[in-house]
Parts: sequence; C-alpha cells; structure tokens
Amino acid sequence: MRITVIGAGHGGKAMAAHLAIMEFPTVLYNRTADHVAAIKELGGVYLESFEAGPRGFGKLIKVTSIMAEALEKAEMVMVVVPSSAHADIAKACAPYLTDGQIVVLHPGRTCGAIEFNKVLRDNGCTADVIIAEAETFIYASRSDGPAQSRIFRIKEAVPLAALPSKRNQLVLDYIHEVFPQFIDGGNVLQTGMNNMGAIFHPALTILNAGWIETTHGDFQFYIDGVTPSVARVLEALDRERVTVAASIGIRARTGMEWLKLSYDAVGEDLNEAIHNQPGYYGINAPPTLNHRYLFEDVPMSLVPIASLGQRYGVSVTGIDGIIKLASIIHRTDYWRRGRTIEKLGINNLSTDELIHYVKEGVLGTE
Amino acid sequence: MRITVIGAGHGGKAMAAHLAIMEFPTVLYNRTADHVAAIKELGGVYLESFEAGPRGFGKLIKVTSIMAEALEKAEMVMVVVPSSAHADIAKACAPYLTDGQIVVLHPGRTCGAIEFNKVLRDNGCTADVIIAEAETFIYASRSDGPAQSRIFRIKEAVPLAALPSKRNQLVLDYIHEVFPQFIDGGNVLQTGMNNMGAIFHPALTILNAGWIETTHGDFQFYIDGVTPSVARVLEALDRERVTVAASIGIRARTGMEWLKLSYDAVGEDLNEAIHNQPGYYGINAPPTLNHRYLFEDVPMSLVPIASLGQRYGVSVTGIDGIIKLASIIHRTDYWRRGRTIEKLGINNLSTDELIHYVKEGVLGTE
Repeated sequence: MRITVIGAGHGGKAMAAHLAIMEFPTVLYNRTADHVAAIKELGGVYLESFEAGPRGFGKLIKVTSIMAEALEKAEMVMVVVPSSAHADIAKACAPYLTDGQIVVLHPGRTCGAIEFNKVLRDNGCTADVIIAEAETFIYASRSDGPAQSRIFRIKEAVPLAALPSKRNQLVLDYIHEVFPQFIDGGNVLQTGMNNMGAIFHPALTILNAGWIETTHGDFQFYIDGVTPSVARVLEALDRERVTVAASIGIRARTGMEWLKLSYDAVGEDLNEAIHNQPGYYGINAPPTLNHRYLFEDVPMSLVPIASLGQRYGVSVTGIDGIIKLASIIHRTDYWRRGRTIEKLGINNLSTDELIHYVKEGVLGTE
Repeated sequence: MRITVIGAGHGGKAMAAHLAIMEFPTVLYNRTADHVAAIKELGGVYLESFEAGPRGFGKLIKVTSIMAEALEKAEMVMVVVPSSAHADIAKACAPYLTDGQIVVLHPGRTCGAIEFNKVLRDNGCTADVIIAEAETFIYASRSDGPAQSRIFRIKEAVPLAALPSKRNQLVLDYIHEVFPQFIDGGNVLQTGMNNMGAIFHPALTILNAGWIETTHGDFQFYIDGVTPSVARVLEALDRERVTVAASIGIRARTGMEWLKLSYDAVGEDLNEAIHNQPGYYGINAPPTLNHRYLFEDVPMSLVPIASLGQRYGVSVTGIDGIIKLASIIHRTDYWRRGRTIEKLGINNLSTDELIHYVKEGVLGTE
C-alpha cells in the first residue's frame, strides 16, 4: 500500500520513517522545499525510538513539495500538520485527489474532517475521497535534526472516525495493515468533542500567563500549573464541552474519565487526578505564550465547541472567556479565525441533520 | 466636628486614631464587638506612622457596636469597610441617619454611593443625608495589633464626589477641616469609573492564578506578574472601561495616565510603565486566590462597569471573561452578587438621565 505523509514536522518525519521501515512505499510532502532538502538528499529519515520500538533508516520513495506528485497513486494520505493548516492543505489537495483515496488527519482536533471536506468541495473536488480523523496523534515524538526523528511512545488505542462514519470500517481495514492501534471512534463529532487538549491546553496556559512569560516556562506545567482553583476552571470548561456534546446526542468522556482511561490516574477531583498522573511530572510549561496551546487549540478546538454550544443553546461562557483572553493576548480574533459552524457549513443543520451528515455524509439541505 | 468611623479594620483604626490625634471628637463603630474589645478597654488606638506623619495615642470618645449610638450627633460618617459591605452598612444606618449628616465612603469602588443611597431609600430612610465617595483610600496603612495601627503614607490628592455632585463643595468644605488632601472628583460616576483597581487587581490575579496558588504568592505581583501579554490584557480591559465611561459622557483616565499622575511612571506601554514604578518593587502577590482582589473587586468594580457597558452598547467581552473566570474559581456568580445597574436602580435611565441623577440627585423617573 502506497502512503503519502503530508507534513515534515516532528510528527510527520516520525511517521514517514516508521512507515518506510515497515516497508510501505512512502512519499513525504512538505510545502516548504527547504524543510525537506536534507531528507531529499539522504533519501530518507533516520529514526530512533523507545526500547523495542521501530528504529533504523526509513528510505522514502519520494520527497517532494509538489502536491500533484505527492498524491499520485497514494492509497492513504496521512496529514500530519497543525490543525490550523488543514484548510490550506485541503485547498492544495483539492485538484489532485482521486476516487478511492483515504485522507486521515492526525489528529483532527475538533471538526477537522468536516472542515477538510468543506474546503475540498468548495474548491471543486468531486472525487470520492474518504476523509477521516484520529482523536489524538498516535506518537509522542520529537525531531532531533533535519533528517532525524525519535519516537518516545506509540499509543495503544487511538479512536478514529471517517466522514461519513458508515465508512469507518473501510478506513480501519486499510489503516490496520499499518497501525493496528486504531479503534472505531464512532463519528467525527465524537472524536472532535473528545479532544481533551481543548480543555487542558488553553486555560492552563492563560491561568499561568504571567508565570510562563516571566520564567520562560521554567516550571512543571501540569504539576505546578494546576492548582485547586486552576483545576476548577478546567472542570467548568470540561462540563461545558461535555454538555455541548450531549446537546448533539454525543456522550463525551469527561477529563476525569479520560485520565483514568489513558493513564489509570484517578482522584477526588481533577486537581488530584492530574497530580496522580506520573507522566505529567517533569513536563515543563511552554517557553512562551506564542505557542500552539493557544494559537492552534483556541481556534481549532475551543471555537468549534463553543460555536456548536451557542447553536444548540448550551452555555459556554467559561470557554468564551478563555477564547476572549487568548484573542487579546495574541491581538487577534480567534472567533473570526476559528472553526465556527458557519465556516464549517453546518450552521443551518438541526442536531438530527448534523448527526445524519457525519454518519451518511449527506447535508440535510442537499 | 464630631466624626464617626464605621469599620475597625486596618484602615478604620488608622483613620479613627488619626482623627482623634487631630483632636476631633471621634467615635469608632464595628459590627462585631469582639473586634473592638481591646480598643474599648484602652479607650483608643495607638498610631505609628511614617517620618513626620501622625503618631501617638488617639483617644476616642466612644467605641461601640450599636449603630444608633455610633451615628448620634455625628456630623461626618466615614465608612471604612470593604465595598462589599456597603449595602449592609447602609441598611444598618438607614433608621438612624438624620438631616444634614454627611456619609463618606472610603473608597466607593464603582457606584458605591449610588448603591448606598439606593439601600438607604429602600430601607425607609428619608433624612436629607449627603452620600459621598472617595476615589481611593487616603492612607496606605496596616494594623499591627488589636488597638494599634500604622500609616505608611497619606496620599496627597484624593478625588471625592458627592451624590448629588452639586453638593461636592459642601462636602469638601466639611472634610477639608480634617483632610485638606481631598479634591473635587466631578461626580460619583467619575470617581467610580476611575477605579483603577478594577483593571489591575482581578485580571492580574487570574492571569497568575497557578503561580499564586502554588507559591502562596511568593513573587512580586506587579513586577513578575505583569508581562507583555498580561499587560496586553490589562490594556484591553482598560480600553473597555474608558469606553464605557465615554458612553456616559465621562472622560476617565487611562491606566497609563493614572500611573503618570500618581507615580510619575511612564513607558512605551502599560508593561513598561508598570515596571517603571519603583513603588511596585517588593510588593508580593496575594498569598491565596481567596482575596479581595477577586471577591471585592470583581462584584463591586468590574461588574458595575460591565453592566453599564452592556446597557449603553459598549463591548465588555474582556471584562466579562475575567468576571466569568473569577466566578468559576470562587464557585459563585459575581454577576448576580455584583453591583449591576438593576441592583443600583439605574437600569431604566438614559445616559442623560443618569448624568442628571448623579448631578442633581433626582432619578429621571421621579
């Protein structure tokens, strides 16, 4: 199975190298040729890894900055870019995608597949392409050099959903040839509403803004940055998220449930549960507020949740407060820049029509 | 001139002692008798002070927890309590106030005099009493023991306004016998809208919430807690405050203007100007989030500003974000607990009627 990886950041390099080492014919695309010049010259990426993890030289069949070349003959297209670039990637892909190709967003954040599909259609793509999204990124990885990457951990169970979700099994059948770790994520509203970074990242950053900027992040982000009051804010945002999900008939996991499920971390409240997750010890805060925890997670995660909440009558004032403060800090309007239901083309749908859309791929108005 | 001081906290003790040392017949009232038992036994308060400042033993003519006794024969009543207690004090005073008495709130925060007047009238007080409010508290002071107080500094110019403002001069004539430092503050909307704590205290606390709670406030609040991003939020809230003031025809000082005026501190932006105020060095953050910077300044300062803004069509989304996060942190609803225009009885006034009210003391609807 020929696979194209879009994006040569920390994650994209790790995935391309891993796929190549597993002997899948792999193409790596990056918009900026300079960023992949070293890989192109070497012909691949060196991968290091955790004990018993994949390692070695991943020899790629092509390294390119030309989208037409990147997508040619690809059966699966793995999009490994910040979610704020999904729309641009979709626009660039639109002319070249062909029937039967599968595009997987790693991850979609919230409503990534819906946005990707909308942009494809708006740009004249009529190919029968399946867009899918992962709930989180499968690796914890880091790039150590221009043609190097290192995987610290491969997650054991990552929910994945296709748009429409009636094609989940088809996508899982394909991707299981490569990654048996993916499990059925229900539909793209479920994967999107279970986006835990939406809750943890922006609020934790905002409520520690002075500390981050004065010390350049020299404190333990989750351990020192989460206190009883900060956790109370996270809990309030989490309730809003879960309530928005409920308003469209989706049972989202709470933050507490997610900590239990992912890390077996429990506690009386979110503050305790976070401090009972050994993996959080030693993780420092971001060195600056100019960080994806705000510029990606606010528009691509919080805004779509809040936008759906407003549409279906759920109070999202806590989330809105964080969106507003992040907008002030970055001198922008994240409501305007973010994935609102208007931008996603789903603003006129009833909840039934919305669910119908993610299951069947057909807009209620069609 | 006989003067009654209401409230025996840090500030009330300092003021009562200072007045007594200046040989004004002074009565001290505190709702809780236990808090003034030591003062009652001694018959006064020992005052220490800055160099050349007032000091000595301030012998009081009465120390009481009975409001009727406290107000009897008082010409001026100095209310030196947290603004969140203004309504309770007004209710307790209502039956005993008599024609010609002057009540001064030290300080009013925002709309303190309006609230005090409303509660008096709602509780059947028909006496011709003048309510006035100071823009800030005249002393920097601290109480060192049950019958001790210490003044660090007496401010040189404190704006004061009466409700109605046509009586400003009358109040100033009285208070100048005691404190020549008070200057004409325009009207109570001006003193209230120039409340700088509204901007500096809650946002700075929220944006350093994790740091405060993890270190118990062991960092310099203004120096370490204010960073370029944090200052950007303060500037945004400040613009909202100044715009709300403008919507009711009031030219409020900006935070930058206030720093220049009060401390001769200037800079390219608020971040620089704050760091150019030597007085901020060495002031630590509050030791906990359970602090008046939130539980007083949010409902008594931010809420009335935001409430006026909503009434007159000014965007107050930044202020609203801070109110919301403070409400979550303290598990309360500061919008409900705060000084909204409905609670102040001014929700049906046009801006002209509002200005008429604070100038003439007559509600447009009367």
